[in-house]
Amino acid sequence: MAERFEIRIAGSGGQGVILATELIGQAITYHEEGLYVVQSQAYGPEARGGKSKAEVVISREPIDYPKVIAPSLQVILTQAAADEFAPDTLPGGRIVYDDFFVTDIPGMNTGCGEGHGNIDARIYSLPIVRTARDKLGREIVTNMVALGCVGRVLELEKIASPDSFRKVIAAHFPVKKIADLNISAFDAGYEEFRNCPMPD
Amino acid sequence: MAERFEIRIAGSGGQGVILATELIGQAITYHEEGLYVVQSQAYGPEARGGKSKAEVVISREPIDYPKVIAPSLQVILTQAAADEFAPDTLPGGRIVYDDFFVTDIPGMNTGCGEGHGNIDARIYSLPIVRTARDKLGREIVTNMVALGCVGRVLELEKIASPDSFRKVIAAHFPVKKIADLNISAFDAGYEEFRNCPMPD
Repeated sequence: MAERFEIRIAGSGGQGVILATELIGQAITYHEEGLYVVQSQAYGPEARGGKSKAEVVISREPIDYPKVIAPSLQVILTQAAADEFAPDTLPGGRIVYDDFFVTDIPGMNTGCGEGHGNIDARIYSLPIVRTARDKLGREIVTNMVALGCVGRVLELEKIASPDSFRKVIAAHFPVKKIADLNISAFDAGYEEFRNCPMPD
Repeated sequence: MAERFEIRIAGSGGQGVILATELIGQAITYHEEGLYVVQSQAYGPEARGGKSKAEVVISREPIDYPKVIAPSLQVILTQAAADEFAPDTLPGGRIVYDDFFVTDIPGMNTGCGEGHGNIDARIYSLPIVRTARDKLGREIVTNMVALGCVGRVLELEKIASPDSFRKVIAAHFPVKKIADLNISAFDAGYEEFRNCPMPD
């Protein structure tokens, strides 16, 4: 990875984006002791209108400025979040949109492809909410499907392994049946991203 | 409150300090729509050695720098955290120590009193862990007792009401019996601080 790698997950309240980013922090620490990680989220006016975002900054050096400046990776679960946050993306970075709630992607119709319009990023439109709802049978695991996409990207970037994620998810949910459901959702998101027919 | 009010809760892993600070963010937003709040925590080398800290920055203006600089309030649950973090406290701020795990307080033996030595702060030594363990019967609610102390301070500062805290705690725990236990722990911490015989 570069010196600094920033991740934002954005959606609406109740989609569990805060927990997802906390588990990113834990998984990285589990996998690689040398990286600095700060996880944060805003409340109050910045989080108004039902929007919810949570961020992770990963760095080889101590993190003096823990807010995201230009995210290397964004996972965006609602149209409102897409409209507001997509333009921030680091040039050459990645945006993963949920294909059910984000239907108006500038310059792109569906599937996976290079960015168009004024956003210079690799763009993925994947069934995150639909996978949670239809494949796992529980929309509440939307955040874990999103986390699976993050898990694949961090594997490509050699920042954390999928197994680190599975371990911290298992540790977070003390009831085994619930842990297993969440790990299955993570795995489904991981596979969605991995099978996307474009260069990672 | 002043323009900016910073809170840090510090202890060891497993004491639930991250959840406590998230609930602070939620309670403030519930109580008062006009304040900006950012909650954050570090993972990786900054969180090594079993230490765990989580922070909240509250401001009347959008928060550009979300890290704590000099906390107005610290709740400190272990000796290691006391040794490391107490000196950061904002002059004239408050430090609440757990009286079971923090036994070596510079210049002070026990109870509540003005700060001594080189720390200019109002110092409180309160039975946080002991209240969770002995009064509530569950050491796992240590973080909610700590949150009760924070709740009392934020009431004094007119930043959030105890009822806002009770509401967000209730919303966080879907099982009513568990929610009630956590609210009782919050109330116990709130009373511990309120009954402390020194000016707030």
